[in-house]
Amino acid sequence: MKVIVVGASGAVGKAAADALAVRHEVIRVNRSSGDVLMDIEDVDSIRAMYREVGKVDAVISAVGHGHFGPVDRMTSEQFMKGILHKTLPQVNLVLEGFEHVNDGGSFALTSGVLNRDPIRGGSCAAAANGALDGFVLGAAVDMPRGIRINSVSPEVLEVSRQKFDGFFHGHYHVSNEAVGLAYCKAVEGCLSGRTFIVDYG
Amino acid sequence: MKVIVVGASGAVGKAAADALAVRHEVIRVNRSSGDVLMDIEDVDSIRAMYREVGKVDAVISAVGHGHFGPVDRMTSEQFMKGILHKTLPQVNLVLEGFEHVNDGGSFALTSGVLNRDPIRGGSCAAAANGALDGFVLGAAVDMPRGIRINSVSPEVLEVSRQKFDGFFHGHYHVSNEAVGLAYCKAVEGCLSGRTFIVDYG
Repeated sequence: MKVIVVGASGAVGKAAADALAVRHEVIRVNRSSGDVLMDIEDVDSIRAMYREVGKVDAVISAVGHGHFGPVDRMTSEQFMKGILHKTLPQVNLVLEGFEHVNDGGSFALTSGVLNRDPIRGGSCAAAANGALDGFVLGAAVDMPRGIRINSVSPEVLEVSRQKFDGFFHGHYHVSNEAVGLAYCKAVEGCLSGRTFIVDYG
Repeated sequence: MKVIVVGASGAVGKAAADALAVRHEVIRVNRSSGDVLMDIEDVDSIRAMYREVGKVDAVISAVGHGHFGPVDRMTSEQFMKGILHKTLPQVNLVLEGFEHVNDGGSFALTSGVLNRDPIRGGSCAAAANGALDGFVLGAAVDMPRGIRINSVSPEVLEVSRQKFDGFFHGHYHVSNEAVGLAYCKAVEGCLSGRTFIVDYG
């Protein structure tokens, strides 16, 4: 299979790309490195990426960021950061991608742990994740030509332990292998409209 | 208790307001009728409503709309309708409401069935609902002064059977009493960060 991984230089995207590259042709897409350059927040850039890559069997995205801070000091604009920088770009990758994905292909988006196991200051991210998980569940029943769509909701990765030190108290840290397997299930499996949780227990 | 119900003229909001009015002072807020007029899509109007009503013990919202249509023909702008007309207005009601809600008070937002039991064309609404459910789960751990926050996710109401005829095949239709009870649990109960599902089984 030919698989696009957007955000392949990030911890989650790299785990996905490395796991799939064992058996498939993986095109690593990032803003400033990789096989193809793309800014996922720019719809024209998404379209150019699809034109350059041609038909594929699967599209994975593992990108996005939001606002972190207490909800009682959060502005409306800060709340929208998660939607505009995590939810909408990944949704746009789907909306622009239909004609570029082969029959029976798949999309895998990336949400995250915060709408099932919250931390302080995480309400913006929790909403962005919830929107993504809701979107794939809703979109799956509409998908044409046997195309599937799922989200992956990983816990904090072991390789990101230092980066998030002090924020995810008591959260399990998951291996690259476990994260990679979730994206393999999304691409190579049979399910649709699901959120694949990568977590302990 | 003094309870604001935004969207009290709608089917869900009326069920909530009627149930709570048995034991509490309910202020019914709508765009064009009720005790106080407010446009929830206008932050200045939200602020004016809070100033007019004064301190309250609970704030309920049961408003919002989005785009319905197949995901493979949905534009980015159509996708955002659910976020901008259902998620963001309800989140803004919370963000603007902290100083007007008494210690130990509560917020209850309204999501819906489509991010747990999808129908065709419902991916925009499913994302909006998921964002709301994610937001309350994330926000609950930040809430000051013992204030709680939950969402209510009702199935289609029995009273709305005609309105949605043909869209919700096989969906159970719930009673006003069941819907009202969920909002009573949100206002009078002890839980926070939850989504109260009103459904059969």
